Amino acid sequence: MNACTTDSPDRFTLPVRVYYEDTDAAGVVYYANYLKYFERCRTEWVRTLGYDQSALMRDHDLAFVVRHAEADYRRPAQLDDLLSVDLRITEQGRSRLKLEQRVMRSLDQTLLVTGYVELACIRASTFKPVAIPPFLQNQFHSFA
Amino acid sequence: MNACTTDSPDRFTLPVRVYYEDTDAAGVVYYANYLKYFERCRTEWVRTLGYDQSALMRDHDLAFVVRHAEADYRRPAQLDDLLSVDLRITEQGRSRLKLEQRVMRSLDQTLLVTGYVELACIRASTFKPVAIPPFLQNQFHSFA
Amino acid sequence: MNACTTDSPDRFTLPVRVYYEDTDAAGVVYYANYLKYFERCRTEWVRTLGYDQSALMRDHDLAFVVRHAEADYRRPAQLDDLLSVDLRITEQGRSRLKLEQRVMRSLDQTLLVTGYVELACIRASTFKPVAIPPFLQNQFHSFA
Amino acid sequence: MNACTTDSPDRFTLPVRVYYEDTDAAGVVYYANYLKYFERCRTEWVRTLGYDQSALMRDHDLAFVVRHAEADYRRPAQLDDLLSVDLRITEQGRSRLKLEQRVMRSLDQTLLVTGYVELACIRASTFKPVAIPPFLQNQFHSFA
Repeated sequence: MNACTTDSPDRFTLPVRVYYEDTDAAGVVYYANYLKYFERCRTEWVRTLGYDQSALMRDHDLAFVVRHAEADYRRPAQLDDLLSVDLRITEQGRSRLKLEQRVMRSLDQTLLVTGYVELACIRASTFKPVAIPPFLQNQFHSFA
Repeated sequence: MNACTTDSPDRFTLPVRVYYEDTDAAGVVYYANYLKYFERCRTEWVRTLGYDQSALMRDHDLAFVVRHAEADYRRPAQLDDLLSVDLRITEQGRSRLKLEQRVMRSLDQTLLVTGYVELACIRASTFKPVAIPPFLQNQFHSFA
Repeated sequence: MNACTTDSPDRFTLPVRVYYEDTDAAGVVYYANYLKYFERCRTEWVRTLGYDQSALMRDHDLAFVVRHAEADYRRPAQLDDLLSVDLRITEQGRSRLKLEQRVMRSLDQTLLVTGYVELACIRASTFKPVAIPPFLQNQFHSFA
Repeated sequence: MNACTTDSPDRFTLPVRVYYEDTDAAGVVYYANYLKYFERCRTEWVRTLGYDQSALMRDHDLAFVVRHAEADYRRPAQLDDLLSVDLRITEQGRSRLKLEQRVMRSLDQTLLVTGYVELACIRASTFKPVAIPPFLQNQFHSFA
């Protein structure tokens, strides 16, 4: 049972394992790599809603780009750790989406990193901002 | 059902999803990243045998280092592809292990990349080659 | 002549070239990789001051760890772009350092990404916060 | 003075610095990352010849893709090491190019990693093999 999911039905959670590729000579996960974990979580969340990003681009000419990202590093993740990476919508605009993301050590649910990411929906062919289409807006609501 | 596992009981297979972080501006998985997939597969294989690499280092002063790696790139993996990454032991020496590794597109079992990796077992504290201990040798046999 | 350096004598600037490894399937630099550029810039800055991070750890038992990082993504960098990555100290505490960092396209000095990074000086052997030693504090002053 | 360049006028050499992002929890450069160094060296070599890869793709519809790569890991590179990464053509075919690549520690010219890479020239729009055009073939000759 995943305490995080139970406590927060409005969050999407992805398990992530730490491999050698993720770590650095300080023996911990390299700070930029938590942003990779955040992005894997967002991608799997959208996939769970029924869309993969290649299909959104190919069939709907849509893409989500990161306008802002930040992370607070509380404790380091280490090699072989199993992590829970989650997200929750904090603000849902016409073409913007703000997410809170967290990385926890699954073993004891220790909070390691918190992040805030702001995404913009763009027309993939022009890179211009565009309204998030209703079929996505509606599904996002349950994570807000 | 995973045809690869069925056909080859001597192989260990790990599913891997392709994320943006893995791709490059050519629209496909960057060539060095298949070596990351190979390593994830080796790590999960050893974990399946009952050991994680941190524990091998901490409790047994053992580590496996790559002496040689090669890859034949047949077809590219793309964003959102689900891949099967596997391994099979082709040679098991006193302190060396040779593996064949493959990356397949799970959807249609198309072979994308084949690899060959040679590992050496070392004493972690001295980096000197050391015999693979019997508790590992025995378990490796079922993948040879 | 580097306009950035001329205009801002209190900034340290590092040129960085964009390679395939840095880009993703959207054809631009992957968002987490700007944090790698930021870190290269910080490392070369400390090296310019006379220290490399291995030596700080080995000889002084000191390390700098990132407590907070954020980035505003204004425009994307692309394959083969030559970039200027710089830093400037915005706040210098007893054991903390706040930096503003920027990524510009060298060709036309277009600002692509701005970042803010907060570092803590720790004793490497204990991971406990420790005062930034005077020999570093003094040198940091010219970048504040 | 760079002994490597002096001894081998037919080689192209690129200096590369090892940053935290390149290392792993074993304290050394992660094995896949040497393939990144190899690729940076190839890219800068082609740039030295007067072409960047974006321009080759845009203006000539040409790209070079890796068909095979291998590496022998002799000694590990470490954080803050300055490396010399070089290449030499070992075989130049109609649409194929075979290169030997090396990574050396610049300080003492210790050979760390040797690699062999096979490239195919393709039409970027179709991914079909195509003859390396004469303007490149001629320039490659001095590195064979």
